[in-house]
Amino acid sequence: MATSPDKDASVAVSEARLWQRHCEMAKLGATAKGGVNRQALSAEDIAARKLLASWATSRGFSVSTDAIGNLFVRRAGEQNDAAPVMTGSHMDSQPTGGRCDGIYGVLAGFEVLEALEDAGIRTRRPVEVVAWMNEEGSRFPVGAMGSAVFAGRLALDKALAVRDPKGVTVAAALAETLAAAPVPRRDGLGGPVAAYLETHIEQGPRLEAGRKTIGVVTGIQGSRRYAVEVTGEEAHAGTTPRAARTDALSAAVAIVSALEKLMEDPTDTVRFTVGRFEVFPGSPNTVPGRVYFTIDFRHPDLAVLDERGGRIAAVAAAHARGCAVSVGPLTDVPPTIFAAPVVDLVRDCTARLGLPHMDMPSGAGHDAMHIATLCPAGMIFVPCERGISHNEAENATPSDLAAGCRVLAEALTTLASR
Amino acid sequence: MATSPDKDASVAVSEARLWQRHCEMAKLGATAKGGVNRQALSAEDIAARKLLASWATSRGFSVSTDAIGNLFVRRAGEQNDAAPVMTGSHMDSQPTGGRCDGIYGVLAGFEVLEALEDAGIRTRRPVEVVAWMNEEGSRFPVGAMGSAVFAGRLALDKALAVRDPKGVTVAAALAETLAAAPVPRRDGLGGPVAAYLETHIEQGPRLEAGRKTIGVVTGIQGSRRYAVEVTGEEAHAGTTPRAARTDALSAAVAIVSALEKLMEDPTDTVRFTVGRFEVFPGSPNTVPGRVYFTIDFRHPDLAVLDERGGRIAAVAAAHARGCAVSVGPLTDVPPTIFAAPVVDLVRDCTARLGLPHMDMPSGAGHDAMHIATLCPAGMIFVPCERGISHNEAENATPSDLAAGCRVLAEALTTLASR
Repeated sequence: MATSPDKDASVAVSEARLWQRHCEMAKLGATAKGGVNRQALSAEDIAARKLLASWATSRGFSVSTDAIGNLFVRRAGEQNDAAPVMTGSHMDSQPTGGRCDGIYGVLAGFEVLEALEDAGIRTRRPVEVVAWMNEEGSRFPVGAMGSAVFAGRLALDKALAVRDPKGVTVAAALAETLAAAPVPRRDGLGGPVAAYLETHIEQGPRLEAGRKTIGVVTGIQGSRRYAVEVTGEEAHAGTTPRAARTDALSAAVAIVSALEKLMEDPTDTVRFTVGRFEVFPGSPNTVPGRVYFTIDFRHPDLAVLDERGGRIAAVAAAHARGCAVSVGPLTDVPPTIFAAPVVDLVRDCTARLGLPHMDMPSGAGHDAMHIATLCPAGMIFVPCERGISHNEAENATPSDLAAGCRVLAEALTTLASR
Repeated sequence: MATSPDKDASVAVSEARLWQRHCEMAKLGATAKGGVNRQALSAEDIAARKLLASWATSRGFSVSTDAIGNLFVRRAGEQNDAAPVMTGSHMDSQPTGGRCDGIYGVLAGFEVLEALEDAGIRTRRPVEVVAWMNEEGSRFPVGAMGSAVFAGRLALDKALAVRDPKGVTVAAALAETLAAAPVPRRDGLGGPVAAYLETHIEQGPRLEAGRKTIGVVTGIQGSRRYAVEVTGEEAHAGTTPRAARTDALSAAVAIVSALEKLMEDPTDTVRFTVGRFEVFPGSPNTVPGRVYFTIDFRHPDLAVLDERGGRIAAVAAAHARGCAVSVGPLTDVPPTIFAAPVVDLVRDCTARLGLPHMDMPSGAGHDAMHIATLCPAGMIFVPCERGISHNEAENATPSDLAAGCRVLAEALTTLASR
C-alpha cells in the first residue's frame, strides 16, 4: 500500500452501513412484493443517482458522468493523474427485479471508498466507483449498454438512438435524467483504466450449495443461441396411422432428447436450455405440423462452444423423423477470460481473509465482460438465496454482502497501490 | 327384394348425378380456396336444407324434421308402418371444411332413393335419408348433437341450451332455421329404426395407400383424452447447473418419449397424439417451470384403452425428473362395434360389386356411433385424397363416391326387404 494506514481497508468495511445503504436504495422503485422496479433513466433511476451523488459529495468524493450516462464517484489518489482503478456495477433493475442485482456492486465499491477514508488509507492511484447505465436492457433493449459504449464495443450514436417501447430514445431520456440529476460532465469515453473489479450476487445456486462465501470469478462463459424449426404435416389424430405421419412434435421431442445427450457433461459446466418451445396448430386432435424452439447453450471454453455447438444441426437432422429441420444461429457471445493476475489477487485476498471460496465462471453476462477488453478485470461473487435472481424474491445476507466488500477492499487497495 | 325390379338398385346409381349434386351443394358456403364453410343452422345450412327438400319433393319423397332439427327425406315402403331403414350423415361443415365430409353421406343416401325410384324397386320398409344436425360441433361446441339427441344419449333441453360464441342458443338458431326452411314436424325422437348405414369419406390415408375403393367399417374406435401438467421451477439458463434444475421441458420431453414407447404397436392400430404442448414462461434464457400438454389416445379395443391408458400416469411419474406431474382425464368415449350382420352385409355387397375393399375401424367419430345404440348399424368408407379432411383441400373422386353409393344401394335394398 502507498501509505501505512492504521488498519486494513477490509477491517474498516462496515457491514451495517453497507446494509443500510442497500435498504435506502431498495426504497427507490420498491415493489409490493419486496423487490425493485428501477429501470434505466426512469424517475427511480434519477432518484438513485441523486442519492449516490449526495452520499459521495458528503464524503468529499467527486462525481461526474460521461456521454452515455455512466455515473462516476472518484476518490483521489496520491498520483491523481495516474490511470484509476475502477469498480462498480449498475443501479438499474429488471421490471420485477431484486434488491441486490447490480446495486450491490455500486454500493460495495462506495463502501470501499468510505472504508479507505475512514481508515486513513491513501492510494497511489485514484479509485473510481461507476454505476454503468442500463445494464439490464429492460427498458432500452440492449443490455450492458453503458459499459459497452465506454469500452468502445458499441457506438455512442447507436446507443443513443435506441428507443424504449414508448418510442423514447436513450438520448432524450438521458438528457432528462441529467437535467433532473445534474453532475459535471467528464470528457471522452474509455481508458486509460489500470484495473477493474466488479462485485455481484452469483444469481445461481452454486455458492450456497457449496457453502462458500466468495466466488472467485475466472471469466464469463460464452453463450450461443439457436432457433430450431421442425416442419412436418398436420394430420387427423384419429384417422392417421403412425406410419403416415410426419409429426413435428414427435420429431422435436426426439431432437431435444438427442441434444440433451450431446450436451451431457460430468462436470456440469455445460449450460443447455430449451426455454421457448411452441407447437402448431396446438389442437389436441391434430398431429402437430410445426414446432419452433430455442436453444441457449453456454460454456466458458470457446473450444467446447465450437465443438458441441457445431454438432447441433447434424444431431437435429439425424432425429428429424421425416420432418424438415432448420437450425439458425441467433446470437454468439464469446467467453470472457479474466486476467490471471486479477483473478489470483482476488483469490489471495479471499484466502487472507479466511473466507470459504471457490473458483467459478459467471453464468450470466455482466458489465465486466466489456471492461475486460480495456484493462485487466475480474469479478467477486457472493451467494444469493436459492440462486434466485431477476425476481422480487431475490435476497442475500448482510454478512455475505460485507464479506464480498472486504475482498473488494483488499484487492482494490492492492491494485491502486501498484 | 320385395318386388322383382327391372334392374339392381346399384346399376341405377348415377355417378354423374351424384357428382352434380355435390357440386351444387359445394356452392352453399363455398370458400375462395375451394372448400366449404357451412356451419350448423347458419344461412348456408338453411340454403342446403331448402335445396335438399326441393329435390326430395320433386321426386315425391316426403320431408320432415324433429325437435332437434334433424332433416328426414322418406321414400315410402310397401309396409309403410314398418320400422324404416335409415341412412345419412350431416350437411354442416367445419369453418374451413371440404366438399365431401358429411354431405357425401346425405347425397349418397338421396341418390339411392332416386335409383330405387328410377329402377322401379319397391322395398318392404320405408327408406329414410337423414341429415343429422350439427355433427361438426364447430359453431355449437357439442359434436354429433342431432344424432345424440335422436338416440337419447343427449337430453333435448341440454342440446337446445348450447350457445355459439356470440351467445345464440341452438333453440333460437333452430327456430330461425325452421322458419326460413319450413318442413313438417314429425313427432318424437329415436326408434323404431330397423337398421342404419352411413357412407363417409375415410378422412385418413389407409384406403388410398392400400388401393382399396371401399372400407368396410367394423366400428368406431374409442378415444380418451388426457391433460398432463408438469411443474418444475423457473431458473436462470446461464447460472443454474443441470443438477440444480427441475426443468419442466426436459421432464415433459422424457415423458412424451416414454409414452411413445408405451404406445408402440407393430400393427399401427394405436393412435397416440400429443397435439397441444405449451411451455411457460417461454423465455429463451429461462429454464421452463411448467409444461401443459394433451394426450389423444384411440383404439378400437376397450381392453387396450384400459390397459395402456391405465399406465399413462405411472409412466409419466417415472420420467418426471424431479418435477411434479399430474395426469387428468378430459374425455372418455368407448369404442363402437358395429353389428356383425350389417358389417357382413356391407362386405358381401362390396364383394358382389367386385370392388377392392378392406375391413377397418373408423378413426374419427361419426353420427353412426350414436345410432348404433338404437339399431344394427354400419358404415361404408370411400378414399379421400391423401387422407386430407377438415381442410378446404379435401377431395374425393366421382367414381369412388359412386362406388360407395352402389354398395349403399345394395345394402339398403337388402335391409329394407327384410
